[in-house]
Formats: sequence, C-alpha cells, structure tokens
Amino acid sequence: MRLRLDIAYDGTAFSGWARQPQLRTVQGAIEAAVTRVLGGEAQLVVAGRTDAGVHASGQVAHLDLSDAQAARLGRGRDPEPSSLAARLNGVLGRYADVHVRATSVAAAGFDARFSAVWRRYAYRVADRATGYDPLERFRTTFVPAALDVAAMDAAARSLTGLHDFAAYCKPRPEATTIRTLLEFDWRRDDTGVLVANVKADAFCHSMVRALVGACVAVGEGRLQVADVAALRDARTRTSAFPVLAARGLTLTEVGYPADELLAARAEQTRARRATDT
Amino acid sequence: MRLRLDIAYDGTAFSGWARQPQLRTVQGAIEAAVTRVLGGEAQLVVAGRTDAGVHASGQVAHLDLSDAQAARLGRGRDPEPSSLAARLNGVLGRYADVHVRATSVAAAGFDARFSAVWRRYAYRVADRATGYDPLERFRTTFVPAALDVAAMDAAARSLTGLHDFAAYCKPRPEATTIRTLLEFDWRRDDTGVLVANVKADAFCHSMVRALVGACVAVGEGRLQVADVAALRDARTRTSAFPVLAARGLTLTEVGYPADELLAARAEQTRARRATDT
Repeated sequence: MRLRLDIAYDGTAFSGWARQPQLRTVQGAIEAAVTRVLGGEAQLVVAGRTDAGVHASGQVAHLDLSDAQAARLGRGRDPEPSSLAARLNGVLGRYADVHVRATSVAAAGFDARFSAVWRRYAYRVADRATGYDPLERFRTTFVPAALDVAAMDAAARSLTGLHDFAAYCKPRPEATTIRTLLEFDWRRDDTGVLVANVKADAFCHSMVRALVGACVAVGEGRLQVADVAALRDARTRTSAFPVLAARGLTLTEVGYPADELLAARAEQTRARRATDT
Repeated sequence: MRLRLDIAYDGTAFSGWARQPQLRTVQGAIEAAVTRVLGGEAQLVVAGRTDAGVHASGQVAHLDLSDAQAARLGRGRDPEPSSLAARLNGVLGRYADVHVRATSVAAAGFDARFSAVWRRYAYRVADRATGYDPLERFRTTFVPAALDVAAMDAAARSLTGLHDFAAYCKPRPEATTIRTLLEFDWRRDDTGVLVANVKADAFCHSMVRALVGACVAVGEGRLQVADVAALRDARTRTSAFPVLAARGLTLTEVGYPADELLAARAEQTRARRATDT
C-alpha cells in the first residue's frame, strides 16, 4: 500500500530534508515516527529535497507500507490511513517543528517525486520599510535597505519561461540547468513583507535563493531590471548578486496531474514496458 | 535627558520583561546594551511588564540618561537620539529575539508607565480548521477542536466596559481588579488563525490569558455566550475555563495622550505640588 504524506516544517533546526547519519533531518524524524507507530523500516520519497534551514508548508512525500505495516495500520483503533497523521504527530510531539498535515492512500501511479509537474516556493524579505520583526526572524531575511518592489517584480517577470538557468544554479555534474520558470513575481503583503512567488517544473540547486538574490540587487539599485535576464543568458555564475539565506525560503506547494491522468500515465508506462520486452 | 524606546521581542527565550538575577530578561538585555553603548547604569521603566513567554511588537519604555551618557550620545558619529536604536541593535545582534524599533527624546512630562492610558494585546489561536503550522508555533496556541468564532466574538464583546474582573485575574494583594475593558473581539485572519483584539486601560495579572481562555471554552461549546459575563459578575476565580498559554500573547500597542496634554498634565502636577507645600 502506497501512502501520500502532506508535510510542514520549520527548517531552522534541521540539517535539511534528506536523511544523514548523526544529523537531525526531516526525513529521519518522520521515518523514525513511522517505525515507532507501524514497526518495520520506512523510506520516504519526497517531491522537494530541501536544504538545511529551508522550510515547507506544502511538502509531499510517499511511503510504501509493507504488508505487516499495513496490517498494523488496519488493526489500530481508527484503521483509516487518514488516522496515521494524528498518530505520527503524537510521536513527533506537541508544538513540534515538523507536522504531518495529512496521510492518504496514494492514487494509482502516484510517485511524490516523479509525478510532480511543478513546485512552488515563497521567499520572504523584510526591508527598512518593513522593519525587523523578531517574531518573524526564522522565516524572513532582513535586508537593511529601502527596496524597490516594483523593479524587483519587473526583474522577476523578465526571467520566466524555458531557459538555461546555469547562471542561477550551483553547478552539479550530470544535472541539467534547463528549467521552465512558470511564475516569478514580487509583492508586499499586508504586513509590509516582500514576498516572492516562484514556480517552476523543477529547480536546480540553490536556484530560488539565487533568483531572489538577483532581484534584491535590483531592488537596492545595484543591478538594473534588464541585467537579470542578461546575466541569465550569459549562462555563467557571477558575483553580481548574492545567494540569499535559507531562512527566507519555504516550499509551499507541489503540483500533480489529476488522479485519472496519473493512472493513465502509469498504464502507458506499463504498456510501453510490455511492448519493449 | 529622558528617552522613549519602542521595543519588539519574541518572548519565548526570555523569563519575561522584568530584570531578575541569573535570568535572561528583556529589560536586562536592553539595559546591558545601553550600558555597553553609553556607559554608566541604565534603568528602564516600561508600559507593560510582560510575563515569561509573552511577546511584544509595540512595547514602550523610557530611560533617563545621566549627563555623562547624554554627552557620550552627543559625541557619537550620529549624535541624534534616534541613532541610538541602531547602536543598541548592533549590540543585541543580527536576527536577535529583541529589537529596539526606535529611540526618541520623550515629550515633556512623558512616563512610559504612568502616562499610558491604554494597552492593546493580540492573542492568536489556531484550531482544527486552521491546522497546526510549525512556522507559527512560537506565537500561536493550538486548540485541537473546531472553534465557533462568532460565538467567541459575541462572548468577548459582552465583557467590555468598567467592571470588577476579579474572576479573570490572579489575585495579588493591594492590586485592584476593577478595569475598563475598552475593546474585546475575535476574528479569523486571512491565514485562518483566530485573533483576539483586547484593549483596556490596564490589565491585572494573567487577565488577557483568562479572558481568551473563557472565549475558547465558548468556542468549543463548553460554555455558553452568556456564561462569561455571569462568571465575571460572580467575581470569584473558577475552573470553568483555562488560562491560556503565554505563547499566543503579544503586546501590540500602548496609548498615550498627545504631547501637549502630557506637558499640561505634568504642569498641573507641579502646580498642585507647589500649592501643597
């Protein structure tokens, strides 16, 4: 039985999503909770492997239960898969920094990583006009300058589309830097915080933090609006803008095809495999 | 020279406002920063002595500088009193949990505590409909129930006016429990969090946390709307509702008379004293 888990976390005290020996990670914490509740081993597959310090409100993972684990779930006081979330949260603790928002039986063909067709992030920046708010410090980057949000929004929008984003990616061998940036815009929310909305089919490493860093350089007047697309098209990394801190970054949403399409895609894959052999 | 300080803090890691030996307090942290920047001793007088764990976005304090401290301020690179805020924040540290929002010369007759004519608090509650958000956990109380915000709002509004609030106060010898509750209402904000707005001339100890606790009991259906005023008029403490946790509570604003009135009040006090002697 494959389950879908919807997950939120404050990344401040985690060494990122991915399990690592001796380090506290989100994957490690949730897998340990699954083992505690259902026994056996647990291995999560996630939509977005967030870096250390990055937060999530809309992370998605899947988990394949062994027959023994499924039986144990079915023997609980509430045998519905949806009840697993509350049981995991009971283990994770009251006011924990990681929270399982929901558990459900995954649609046929669903894979949290490979079925995802887009990811959306938010990045929060407070500037001089916003002021520094100690209650928001774990999820907002403070820039002690007056930022021009209209210029930042224009710069962001100029970057969208299918492009090689090598200039905005930490190089990794074998990893493509060609991505479709579906949405990128900036606005001030009603508390005065500048919020970037960034949506793409997928992101290469540190891409969001580089994109918002370039926009902040525009907002400060250190770069012109037209520079950010020109830098992108130069396709080489530059020191013209900073890669902003993880604290401002939150994975907010992952997009998947409708369940019928997932099933059809899985069916196609099966058919193709049958033809191939 | 008397300065006014506008202050914000995340109360989570502080043992409250008031300086105490061996404990980390907001007053202690700011006074130490003043001493570091201006030398000498510093003693702050505050509008609202918040308890351990309580936050502030609009706390106000005053500070009387000695001649030596005033001279040292005047010899700085930026000799304006408004520059002191940045110097104090430099000492308090980047991404600190306490922040001096502004420093200014106090108007004639200003006293942060005794001039204050009202205080306003916000209390934040997430319920089942809101969901638990790990990123908001330090400033939001989570109640795992479906709360009826319309009933909570009706209950809150029924409590306003000049009354004896002994039923909603921790008893303290010599402290009056007669207060004017100027505003008390509940709404859901655009993230689904229930936010109480509570404004009074002054509050007795734990009064806001008891008032919101009674409203949450109404929201859960454990109390009726009419009960909260009836309990108030019984004027004795009861276990019918809980005193909610400090984490949800923030001092947001302190009201003072206009500067001209402050000066006139100070003048009246002086004249009265002159007549008395």
